[in-house]
Amino acid sequence: MPERIFGHIPGFPVGSWFESGAELAAAGLHRPLVAGISGTEADEADSIVLSGGYEDDQDLGDEILYTGQGGRDQNTGKQVAHQKLNRGNLALAKSKLKGLPVRVICGSAHKSNNSPSTGYRYDGLYRVEDFWQEKGRAGYYVWRYRLVKFFENEIFTSSKVTDDLASYSISYRQETNILRIVRDTNQARRIKELYDYCCQVCSTRFEGAVGPYAEAAHIRPLGIPHNGCDSVDNLLCLCPNHHVLFDYGAFSVADNLSLIGIEGVLTVIAEHKIHPDNLRYHREHYYLKQGEL
Amino acid sequence: MPERIFGHIPGFPVGSWFESGAELAAAGLHRPLVAGISGTEADEADSIVLSGGYEDDQDLGDEILYTGQGGRDQNTGKQVAHQKLNRGNLALAKSKLKGLPVRVICGSAHKSNNSPSTGYRYDGLYRVEDFWQEKGRAGYYVWRYRLVKFFENEIFTSSKVTDDLASYSISYRQETNILRIVRDTNQARRIKELYDYCCQVCSTRFEGAVGPYAEAAHIRPLGIPHNGCDSVDNLLCLCPNHHVLFDYGAFSVADNLSLIGIEGVLTVIAEHKIHPDNLRYHREHYYLKQGEL
Repeated sequence: MPERIFGHIPGFPVGSWFESGAELAAAGLHRPLVAGISGTEADEADSIVLSGGYEDDQDLGDEILYTGQGGRDQNTGKQVAHQKLNRGNLALAKSKLKGLPVRVICGSAHKSNNSPSTGYRYDGLYRVEDFWQEKGRAGYYVWRYRLVKFFENEIFTSSKVTDDLASYSISYRQETNILRIVRDTNQARRIKELYDYCCQVCSTRFEGAVGPYAEAAHIRPLGIPHNGCDSVDNLLCLCPNHHVLFDYGAFSVADNLSLIGIEGVLTVIAEHKIHPDNLRYHREHYYLKQGEL
Repeated sequence: MPERIFGHIPGFPVGSWFESGAELAAAGLHRPLVAGISGTEADEADSIVLSGGYEDDQDLGDEILYTGQGGRDQNTGKQVAHQKLNRGNLALAKSKLKGLPVRVICGSAHKSNNSPSTGYRYDGLYRVEDFWQEKGRAGYYVWRYRLVKFFENEIFTSSKVTDDLASYSISYRQETNILRIVRDTNQARRIKELYDYCCQVCSTRFEGAVGPYAEAAHIRPLGIPHNGCDSVDNLLCLCPNHHVLFDYGAFSVADNLSLIGIEGVLTVIAEHKIHPDNLRYHREHYYLKQGEL
């Protein structure tokens, strides 16, 4: 089996059109003939196809909301079982951890003004910024992913000046990709002030020579489709480690503020009222319990 | 003293021109009449002016390299003392920790093809991505900053559908800003594999349901003016907490691999040869020893 390629496939720039899935596979753009996600449990995903399979798939330009595979009735197309976080679904989830680019191919069956009228079009590289589970209309859980345009090939220009008479510069392309973006908002800054930059899980406080550092996590994320609010009742002040663990569903918080998945209880000061709906949202959509995926 | 404003000043869009420093101050764009940085030890910096003061200041479009203030002879303009990390210099350093936008004003004296021929021009918002200390030509230390274009006002569209007959959507602007970007490279991925995602400082290993997570730090950063290489002899595998602490100069590593600023010794496997020049670069440019700033 030839090694999988992450990133663009030489010879097929963004916008390339393909008549069929077989052509896509032959070109190396998307190797599975049926599955929407290319990837196994051992690896990250190298490509996905938007092909109208799930009505909740959304194309927002630089952002895509995508649904995992599995659990559908072959004939009716209806969801008849929970999707598992295995195979391609797990591969696409691993992509969030690894930050490697995913080739996105848009098929004509994808319900969007942007879709090609026939065949498939290569739309470029995206990165998996987030994933979570959601209960679909039929009451079964599906896996959902947010992909954002991939920032690639940041050019770093290097200048070398030698001591001899001829000084020279070298420009070279250093490929970097974004693994993770930590964001802030007005209320995020407020929660950090409230807790004086102490982590609500482990009480760690980073005080450098320049000042303190902490991160803030929106319990129910902002934006479509989560629609969380930027307010302190939806925020936690965390150290970078616990921020990562929270975002990746390694632990969650019960209504009584005990921690789920790790030992301990959340430190919460009197003025900080966390809305239980937000905690529940995180438990239901993000908490990844081993063995129950 | 009126409260300082971070971000754009209403009424003065990007490109606004001002005849003098007094006009800048009156408009609220940059309040100090002499100092290049607006900010004190208690706050982050809200604005800076590029005015040709330091020959190392560079305007790379979306990136700016800027030099701190202080230690210069009034008459000759030469550096005659070390710059301290206090006052405006400290304010601009705090901006890295807080992620708040800095207004950048370009003056005619700034040596760049991009400068206005006279007066001052407001060039928009930037964020302080990094700062370090550097020995200038005269042998004195100056503080240096890398500012990058500020990504602001990410629009989050929220959809709310009510149960009554008239369903409706709400779009609102949710202001977020980037606090920190964690990047990866080919070799960064390699160092993580080498250490099986274990932090070289504290041995923490995050293993989630989906897979392991760790971050990699280039000891001598990539890009101008550091010119570090993307190679394992210039990389450390770290947990998010120690990655932040390393980037913010809270600790460094001695040639014998003992840790400076925190307890312990770096875990290094036999195959991983770290180049001592890179360690020295970090110590000399990034390590922030309390009381010696």
